[in-house]
Amino acid sequence: MLSPARSSLLETLVDRLAGLPSIGRKSAQRLAHYVLAAPVEEVEALSRALIEARRGIRPCAVCGNHAEAERCSVCGNPRRDATLVCVVERPSDVAAFEKLGTYRGLYHVLGGTLSPLDGIGPAELNLSSLFARCADGVEEVILALGTHADGEATATYIVQRLRDTPVRVTRLARGLPAGSDLEFVDELTMKRALEGRVELGAKA
Amino acid sequence: MLSPARSSLLETLVDRLAGLPSIGRKSAQRLAHYVLAAPVEEVEALSRALIEARRGIRPCAVCGNHAEAERCSVCGNPRRDATLVCVVERPSDVAAFEKLGTYRGLYHVLGGTLSPLDGIGPAELNLSSLFARCADGVEEVILALGTHADGEATATYIVQRLRDTPVRVTRLARGLPAGSDLEFVDELTMKRALEGRVELGAKA
Repeated sequence: MLSPARSSLLETLVDRLAGLPSIGRKSAQRLAHYVLAAPVEEVEALSRALIEARRGIRPCAVCGNHAEAERCSVCGNPRRDATLVCVVERPSDVAAFEKLGTYRGLYHVLGGTLSPLDGIGPAELNLSSLFARCADGVEEVILALGTHADGEATATYIVQRLRDTPVRVTRLARGLPAGSDLEFVDELTMKRALEGRVELGAKA
Repeated sequence: MLSPARSSLLETLVDRLAGLPSIGRKSAQRLAHYVLAAPVEEVEALSRALIEARRGIRPCAVCGNHAEAERCSVCGNPRRDATLVCVVERPSDVAAFEKLGTYRGLYHVLGGTLSPLDGIGPAELNLSSLFARCADGVEEVILALGTHADGEATATYIVQRLRDTPVRVTRLARGLPAGSDLEFVDELTMKRALEGRVELGAKA
């Protein structure tokens, strides 16, 4: 038998890269060979960025968003409207909203949705602090959860929990996505778009 | 204006990940969010694997393959046939051959192909050490370069340089790839397969 021409450092790197989501073994190998040929400063910067981000970013004490200090940059901004709280599943959802540049309220990151089959009940989500915030000056909670079954169940749970409070609960509109051809829109979206139809040129 | 909800550590990480080949901005963001949610040990291991591989792996002094010591694991293996040298473009080509497990000779990694338009002449490739090896016990050089124009030109150059030496120069066979339907094979491959046809059941 021939002994294999393996470099253990290379194999370790490929294994680690292949452990990342949506990176298969073949991509990991391509990335590893790129890394070996890249300037050492570039690889150092990537290596450092990974560990510094992982160590330096923690959940915001108020809303659960990614934060580099006790509060995230949204919660720490006195110009944001603290009476308005948009409830999302993940920090990446916050990033998506912030990219719009039009939302002026705060956020609350649940860390997922209720999913009894996976053992995720209310205690596993960042929910108690949401209800605490709602008892402390919040006027409107905007539910911006996924429109899958678990997202709907989580929305229903929050609506029920806030029913007897003065907090107004809204959810994002549902309907046709921008730029869609009716032919390619699924039935449920179509049904909801029909139910949620809006009057144009309202009569007196 | 609202100040953006940016985490600079996160942005830095996304920028760095997006600098890798075949990873777009969107994938980089997804990977970064994965990293932030992953166990810190896992991220440390990835960060370490990157920098250790980049710092610890260098070109083999003999063949130019990836090596963790002065010689790569192939050149350092006394059971490999040192009279046989397979010339490839990149270390990843060595890995591909080694995966076969059937090649028992050594390698020579050029680091690319001749490409006059990109300013890559013989001096830019790992060629002089190939010719030095050829003057020192090598009996056969197998050219395993890409079948693109630069690969062909590089093969021709090596053949010319070795013409007046006793070294036998061969190249990989060309023809139909395994499992191919004739309908989908390109014309040049077909032409070469026809030219290189092999007699079956040879007559006495």
